[in-house]
Amino acid sequence: MNGQEMYRLAEELFPICRSITGKGTRDTLSILNRELPQITIHNVPTGTAVFDWSVPKEWVIRDAYVETLSGEKIIDFKKTNLHVLGYSAPIDKVVSKEELLKIVYTLPDQPDLIPYVTSYYKERIGICMSENMKNSLSEDQYHVVVDSEFIDGNLTYGELIIPGETDEEIFFSTYVCHPSMANNELSGPVVCTALAKYIQSIKRRYTYRFVFIPETIGSITYLSKNLEYLQQHVIAGFNISCVGDDRTYSYIESPYADNLADRVVQNVLSFHYPEYKRYTFMQRGSDERQYCSPLVNLPMCAVCRSKYEEYPEYHTSADNLSVISPEGLQGAFDMLRKCIDLLEYNNRYRITVPCEPQLGKRGLYPTISYKGSHDYVNNLTAFIAYSTGSHDLIDISNRIKADIDTLKPIIEKCLLHQLIEKV
Amino acid sequence: MNGQEMYRLAEELFPICRSITGKGTRDTLSILNRELPQITIHNVPTGTAVFDWSVPKEWVIRDAYVETLSGEKIIDFKKTNLHVLGYSAPIDKVVSKEELLKIVYTLPDQPDLIPYVTSYYKERIGICMSENMKNSLSEDQYHVVVDSEFIDGNLTYGELIIPGETDEEIFFSTYVCHPSMANNELSGPVVCTALAKYIQSIKRRYTYRFVFIPETIGSITYLSKNLEYLQQHVIAGFNISCVGDDRTYSYIESPYADNLADRVVQNVLSFHYPEYKRYTFMQRGSDERQYCSPLVNLPMCAVCRSKYEEYPEYHTSADNLSVISPEGLQGAFDMLRKCIDLLEYNNRYRITVPCEPQLGKRGLYPTISYKGSHDYVNNLTAFIAYSTGSHDLIDISNRIKADIDTLKPIIEKCLLHQLIEKV
Amino acid sequence: MNGQEMYRLAEELFPICRSITGKGTRDTLSILNRELPQITIHNVPTGTAVFDWSVPKEWVIRDAYVETLSGEKIIDFKKTNLHVLGYSAPIDKVVSKEELLKIVYTLPDQPDLIPYVTSYYKERIGICMSENMKNSLSEDQYHVVVDSEFIDGNLTYGELIIPGETDEEIFFSTYVCHPSMANNELSGPVVCTALAKYIQSIKRRYTYRFVFIPETIGSITYLSKNLEYLQQHVIAGFNISCVGDDRTYSYIESPYADNLADRVVQNVLSFHYPEYKRYTFMQRGSDERQYCSPLVNLPMCAVCRSKYEEYPEYHTSADNLSVISPEGLQGAFDMLRKCIDLLEYNNRYRITVPCEPQLGKRGLYPTISYKGSHDYVNNLTAFIAYSTGSHDLIDISNRIKADIDTLKPIIEKCLLHQLIEKV
Repeated sequence: MNGQEMYRLAEELFPICRSITGKGTRDTLSILNRELPQITIHNVPTGTAVFDWSVPKEWVIRDAYVETLSGEKIIDFKKTNLHVLGYSAPIDKVVSKEELLKIVYTLPDQPDLIPYVTSYYKERIGICMSENMKNSLSEDQYHVVVDSEFIDGNLTYGELIIPGETDEEIFFSTYVCHPSMANNELSGPVVCTALAKYIQSIKRRYTYRFVFIPETIGSITYLSKNLEYLQQHVIAGFNISCVGDDRTYSYIESPYADNLADRVVQNVLSFHYPEYKRYTFMQRGSDERQYCSPLVNLPMCAVCRSKYEEYPEYHTSADNLSVISPEGLQGAFDMLRKCIDLLEYNNRYRITVPCEPQLGKRGLYPTISYKGSHDYVNNLTAFIAYSTGSHDLIDISNRIKADIDTLKPIIEKCLLHQLIEKV
Repeated sequence: MNGQEMYRLAEELFPICRSITGKGTRDTLSILNRELPQITIHNVPTGTAVFDWSVPKEWVIRDAYVETLSGEKIIDFKKTNLHVLGYSAPIDKVVSKEELLKIVYTLPDQPDLIPYVTSYYKERIGICMSENMKNSLSEDQYHVVVDSEFIDGNLTYGELIIPGETDEEIFFSTYVCHPSMANNELSGPVVCTALAKYIQSIKRRYTYRFVFIPETIGSITYLSKNLEYLQQHVIAGFNISCVGDDRTYSYIESPYADNLADRVVQNVLSFHYPEYKRYTFMQRGSDERQYCSPLVNLPMCAVCRSKYEEYPEYHTSADNLSVISPEGLQGAFDMLRKCIDLLEYNNRYRITVPCEPQLGKRGLYPTISYKGSHDYVNNLTAFIAYSTGSHDLIDISNRIKADIDTLKPIIEKCLLHQLIEKV
Repeated sequence: MNGQEMYRLAEELFPICRSITGKGTRDTLSILNRELPQITIHNVPTGTAVFDWSVPKEWVIRDAYVETLSGEKIIDFKKTNLHVLGYSAPIDKVVSKEELLKIVYTLPDQPDLIPYVTSYYKERIGICMSENMKNSLSEDQYHVVVDSEFIDGNLTYGELIIPGETDEEIFFSTYVCHPSMANNELSGPVVCTALAKYIQSIKRRYTYRFVFIPETIGSITYLSKNLEYLQQHVIAGFNISCVGDDRTYSYIESPYADNLADRVVQNVLSFHYPEYKRYTFMQRGSDERQYCSPLVNLPMCAVCRSKYEEYPEYHTSADNLSVISPEGLQGAFDMLRKCIDLLEYNNRYRITVPCEPQLGKRGLYPTISYKGSHDYVNNLTAFIAYSTGSHDLIDISNRIKADIDTLKPIIEKCLLHQLIEKV
């Protein structure tokens, strides 16, 4: 699945009005399920206790608009679903302009844009519009309609497990709870879809787990049902969010920046995009908040291209399909593909003979020693020189400054010639 | 006891001629004893063996002057006690100008100032004066009197123990052996007096120990009598010296800069005065030399405002009451008060629930998620995110860049809501 | 043996045509044996299996030249032995200019210089000349002679063991396989000769081992015969190469830059020549490649003045006796002599008394305390302050920033006064 295909999937998913529960999320998961038939859809009923939280009522949103008394719709959910506050309570009422303004959310600093606002855990009525539209409201009264409902329903998520040789797991988490925004967050699900297809195509040591969940309450719910298993099996995991634009790469550290996922991302990005932006766990904001919380403590970190909260279109109507691109999605895929490869090849390797092996007799070394030829220290000899059996491939890669794509054929060649063995 | 009160105590103590033994030190301890009645005064007799040293004879100094043969006093101990060499042997003799100059100490580089000079362990006669006065000596003969005596007496020091819930101790040491100089060293005793009063006023976990001693021989003597107990009970200690001016803050590391006292001071100063000056143990010079010596090895470090040896008035007549100020003393008090608070609150805290707690339902989190509101990472959530139970509060404070004054109410609130527990 | 004497030895050795086997190497070892009669000469027969390698045939080189058909020798091995490719196969043939050019090696970037080229493990015929000479070849035919032969012979090396109080060893390795080049590599053997004589002259704790070997195949051969013993006894070792010029000092780290030899060299060079150049193991190139290979893993590193591959004359005819100098050789000797002294004195020392000892009564401290005199922290008190028994002398030296030449008399004085003891 290449960048173009990922982009087309994002286009297909874009119009759906997702939230942390409800039909939009189910429709989204259905489309992902079409791409990856092995996805299992799980439903967790409203009211289920999940650690310190409980699964909220399901939000049904059918329509929402603001019209003048003469029937002109100035706001229409059907055109832009960001116009309705996420989890807005229902209303169907003629109100004064003053009353309307009390429930209107805008972005004064970005006066052209509609903000993305939610109120999941306190019942509110809300209409979102641009600051400019708000300033142009000239009627005395408006008819405001939010045709919504809270019902006992379910929180829905998708789970995909791709078995490997071992039950040690690599875990990817991404979220499917944002309405019509592209980078945050259709990029995550589409890149994860492509990664899952890639993983299905390779010989793999590890089992891979993907979850497509609502943010926060979804990861909390998922963890409440799977915590012990995950703690026993996940060796590295990645929260994938905002991976569709083409401006930079970002890495959000785990609390102490020292787990296997941290090491993999640090290594891969140091070669893939050395100017990448590194954020501490103080700058966390997505589901790494749950996965890396003290009593959960999975070996995970988070990866973005332009990080949530850090790009101007974030959580506005401007985060549309023009923010992401096939190239942006492909870049994220490539970077994460390297993470997977690095994990798959990450062993402690040990040379099989004392001293340097005679590479020349195996055709791996020039037979003439010449100034200039003599002075090269190439990746092959460096890799062998550090194949001590005591440091893993990530460490060797960092030291000898050779990336996984360079090392893969070298490792294969050394294994073939029995110059190294796995410890 | 505020800065003004500390300053007034320094004023009261200033005129007394202190040394490592004798009446001046006893008078000083009496005044401190008036402020802190719980101080115990200890006397250790001359000749007592204290590790590699022995307690010297007590120095009695009654008067000292230099007069012309016509009876004009050009030097008068009663006006400025720095004029006599500390531990000067007696003399009462008419001497030639040449003979006088042999026992005169000046500061050629600071020609207006009288130096502070001592000769504790080799008997000498000495008169200190300004370089300018020395150059203006025009008589052929002078009458030189030092009315001093060495007697079998005592080395005297004060000790204050303020019991806490446990017998683990925080130790403060300061010295009372310098004659009329203000920053070095009345600032130390007066700030320690204020700290002791503060500690007496708070609910405290730790026992606090203050000693008011002569420098070097006093700390050696004190350690020779208390070493084993201190090694078993002191968890952090501070040598307090030169804490009265208002120019900077200084921290002198322990030998490896890694004990609890080091960690506390590094943390507190990083917030209190980020431009603070940090000195290695190579720049040591006060009683940290004894407390951190290899076979003593107490977990201590040293704190100053402008460090001894590093400010121009050091060990001269210019180190008078104009060098210190109420603000300077108050700043040192505040900084050390934070050290105490940080120690009292320094626990390993652990969150009580997996994943983030739902702070909203406890009124600790905004109920609406909005661009900008969503992007803040505040000290509360950061503190909780690092409440792993494996790192202490100092480490958390360093990581989340929140100082003890910020963290205290957060910790209290989290304990109240049972979101964290002490490990 | 001073710099002048080292230089004269290099002059004597310069004309000999050395290779990894053969008479030139034996002649070289004979001269070194004259200087150090305790050297043992070892011969390892052609075909002996040495780890992944085997000892090659011995190369006999009697003569080599290129002459015009009129008998004018334009290339003459007897004048410059670099003209013949190392291990060149024999030839005696009139060839066309085109045929000649196929076996000619030059340095286009350094057109005046003859390159040093070898082909040990693949049979080739080769003539080396300057690019300028190549360009001036104007005849149609030339008579090319290489009067060489490959015979079943030996690989020859010298080994010198200087016993000390213990059988723990300090190991020096240098190589004797380069033809007429001065820095690389007569500087190594002559400096090692001087070091061996120095070591024979001192009271020593450690046993010292020097090997004078062919590079690569020599060290592999030596290791194949001595690996277990070396691994059990060598506590620090140094590969010595290119130590004759006077431009800089260089240090090539072991793989993790953390063994005792690394620590010694880092310490000594930080004082001896603070601007020294530090190279990682990625920049390795001499026998450290074998000594530090994973399954050999001796605690060694490499020392140069201008590092091989890094100076313009490297592996060319310009690496002649003008590149090295008595001062350059002496500087390397001095630096390595300090490494030896630091190793010999490297103990964990512990102070014998709690608190600072009273140095004054031993005449080791000024008896008067004066501004300026009080503020010095000298090496004596610093050394004692860090004599904790838990860190070795190298660590103390690094911390207190005093070099071994400063510390030697201090240690002797402290031992004499029983202020410290060895742990």
